[in-house]
Amino acid sequence: MAVWLEQAGDDFEARFAAFLTTKREVSEDVNATVKAIIDDVRARGDAALAEYSLKFDGLDFATTSMRVTQAEIDAAFASVSPELIDALRLAAERIERHHARQMPKDDIYEDAIGVGLGSRWTAIDAVGLYVPGGTASYPSSVLMNAVPARVAGVPRVVMVVPAQGGAINPTVLAAAKIGGVTEIYRIGGAQAVAALAYGTETIAPVAKIVGPGNAYVAAAKRQVFGTVGIDMIAGPSEVLVIADKDNNPDWIAADLLAQAEHDRGAQSILITDDAAFARSVETAVERQLNTLTRAETAAASWQDFGALIIVPDLNAAVPLANRIAAEHLELAVADPDALMAGIRNAGAIFIGRHTPEVIGDYVGGSNHVLPTARSARFSSGLSVLDFVKRTSILRLGPEQLKQLAPAAIALATSEGLDAHARSVAIRLNLED
Amino acid sequence: MAVWLEQAGDDFEARFAAFLTTKREVSEDVNATVKAIIDDVRARGDAALAEYSLKFDGLDFATTSMRVTQAEIDAAFASVSPELIDALRLAAERIERHHARQMPKDDIYEDAIGVGLGSRWTAIDAVGLYVPGGTASYPSSVLMNAVPARVAGVPRVVMVVPAQGGAINPTVLAAAKIGGVTEIYRIGGAQAVAALAYGTETIAPVAKIVGPGNAYVAAAKRQVFGTVGIDMIAGPSEVLVIADKDNNPDWIAADLLAQAEHDRGAQSILITDDAAFARSVETAVERQLNTLTRAETAAASWQDFGALIIVPDLNAAVPLANRIAAEHLELAVADPDALMAGIRNAGAIFIGRHTPEVIGDYVGGSNHVLPTARSARFSSGLSVLDFVKRTSILRLGPEQLKQLAPAAIALATSEGLDAHARSVAIRLNLED
Repeated sequence: MAVWLEQAGDDFEARFAAFLTTKREVSEDVNATVKAIIDDVRARGDAALAEYSLKFDGLDFATTSMRVTQAEIDAAFASVSPELIDALRLAAERIERHHARQMPKDDIYEDAIGVGLGSRWTAIDAVGLYVPGGTASYPSSVLMNAVPARVAGVPRVVMVVPAQGGAINPTVLAAAKIGGVTEIYRIGGAQAVAALAYGTETIAPVAKIVGPGNAYVAAAKRQVFGTVGIDMIAGPSEVLVIADKDNNPDWIAADLLAQAEHDRGAQSILITDDAAFARSVETAVERQLNTLTRAETAAASWQDFGALIIVPDLNAAVPLANRIAAEHLELAVADPDALMAGIRNAGAIFIGRHTPEVIGDYVGGSNHVLPTARSARFSSGLSVLDFVKRTSILRLGPEQLKQLAPAAIALATSEGLDAHARSVAIRLNLED
Repeated sequence: MAVWLEQAGDDFEARFAAFLTTKREVSEDVNATVKAIIDDVRARGDAALAEYSLKFDGLDFATTSMRVTQAEIDAAFASVSPELIDALRLAAERIERHHARQMPKDDIYEDAIGVGLGSRWTAIDAVGLYVPGGTASYPSSVLMNAVPARVAGVPRVVMVVPAQGGAINPTVLAAAKIGGVTEIYRIGGAQAVAALAYGTETIAPVAKIVGPGNAYVAAAKRQVFGTVGIDMIAGPSEVLVIADKDNNPDWIAADLLAQAEHDRGAQSILITDDAAFARSVETAVERQLNTLTRAETAAASWQDFGALIIVPDLNAAVPLANRIAAEHLELAVADPDALMAGIRNAGAIFIGRHTPEVIGDYVGGSNHVLPTARSARFSSGLSVLDFVKRTSILRLGPEQLKQLAPAAIALATSEGLDAHARSVAIRLNLED
């Protein structure tokens, strides 16, 4: 099933390097289709949205409103079991408390020569949140995107969600209510992204669009980038578990399968220093696989992209983990802190035997939107920082200008920029 | 010359909205050419680089080394005037001191129920810095990109710069030395971006690429995005000056021209409450224009994209400024703080009559790489944050897992993810 790699083997480096660059996604080229849809929504606004919704979602805006009403949201909320509402509330509260600590502070100060400098943070004015329809419509993702926006102070959080025949998963609407979403429209696909970016008669434009989606949504986000901001384009999920032999193989197998069941392109990797333990985990994976509703997806992921890597000792796992730069990294070992000190590249680290990654998906408080496909080498998970922006501040008086002017003029002159030099020089003889 | 807009006029809103969406760049479609170059560098490495450098830069790597040697860097440094070296050093020191304050702090804590949570920041392992050749080769930009990377703790900062016939601007090399660049290669264009992203025999790959470049470089950065991180793709520069009538029109004209001389697509806007003052500034711009080395560029920018906007009172400038979301905003008014409180969207704010934007280009200490083309609505200037990434940390013991498990299982079950639910549930009956 999964690939088996032993670091002691001769060809390990070559096989590991090849494993690292295995593509797990076929990127469909839908750019031309998407461009036509975006152009159409820009040109015709609501009328275009109505046509696409009729065509793709079987939804007639002549009889169903594009905007989901407060009464609909409240009714959906009331239809969700109290147990699930409590779970959503617990998750939202924990996400809110953790993300509140991420809010950056303004830093306005005067330096030694009296120059005023600073960084001032403000919330983005309006954010769009794309929520996929069907089975990929996850209430937990609504919370993970909406709550940090609310914490950042974004006044408008606009959710779009495609609604086949008008129906939206009531738990998604309940999550939107709990997460502080301020407007919801039942539109999806590239047309929804276009509406958020450019606005229509009904939908005022936003300044940034976040949230996962299919190939059309991802292509649309790339195309509107610049007009609005976008979050990362997430790839299939992945977990790396570093485990010693003292783990219950069934626990580790369950963790590997929790990734694999997401998507055929998901990836689950175990690194251990004990080949017998790896075999036990492999056996447990195969046994548990059969019991899953999404067995077919999980089996495909495990077969195509799963890996069991045997290292001579656990310290050797650290440089491999840094090269893999996993979205999720579990450290199920006796002394996780010793390993953690050496980890540089990981979206999130789950420490010890009682921190399955799944806790982070729902109720840990940290964000489950994390960098995939080795991008943890250069990027971070979603946070409050994604919903704010920083303005630099500079303030000089005549004295400070006099002190800094010669250097500025020298640099401007060396760069051949006369007007730059003059803009400073002209102020040196006149003070008010 | 520049457009004249009076808010008191009937058609102001329509004209202002049109003005806001004026495109200032023709984006050349070079994607196919760039893709071929990138594929070639991936396939053939150094050999491909050598061919492109011979073809585009007239540079033969058989006789000139691709890597710029330390002796060459030292010789370049020695050839630059002491006055200019001092200016570079002053700039670098001020940039370093300001950016050091931006370094985010780790936040590792335990919450009320004993769950360990945290954010840990680490520097990116290696960063590539693209520096354009020819007249767009600005030593100040080398400092603005390299110093924050050094402050962040990035161990490898790899500069690439095209060198027509082998020559590199000595001031650029001096800035690289002062800014802490660790490797320099005389390559440019899409091929240099490909080499940084994928590596060659000579150049080890980096994890992120920053710095400005022409259409080929911009397209290459977009194409390698995902394999590596990239910074924003900067558009033409822009300044918005909000000024009252008590300014010297010549000072304000010089500031407007300092933007205009950058690029034919640059934009300079004045908002004032005094039409006579605006006329005086316009006259001063026309007078100063003739004296500039780059008069042709500045004149084209001012004619095509310059604007003078007259508002009934200065408070009315604030909402317009937020819609323009300028890269640079000067507040040359008697009470700048009153206006500043209302500004939400701006890359950088320059406060008062003695803070020309040019100071921020060179020696203010803040970064001159700032969001253009209204992207200050959703993004920020370059900072130390662009050179670090955050890893989330989660740590539960058996007790914490027991407390959070029911909600996690309820949410996983509602999302139809069996293995997610099992990964938590399986740990509830066994504790070690």
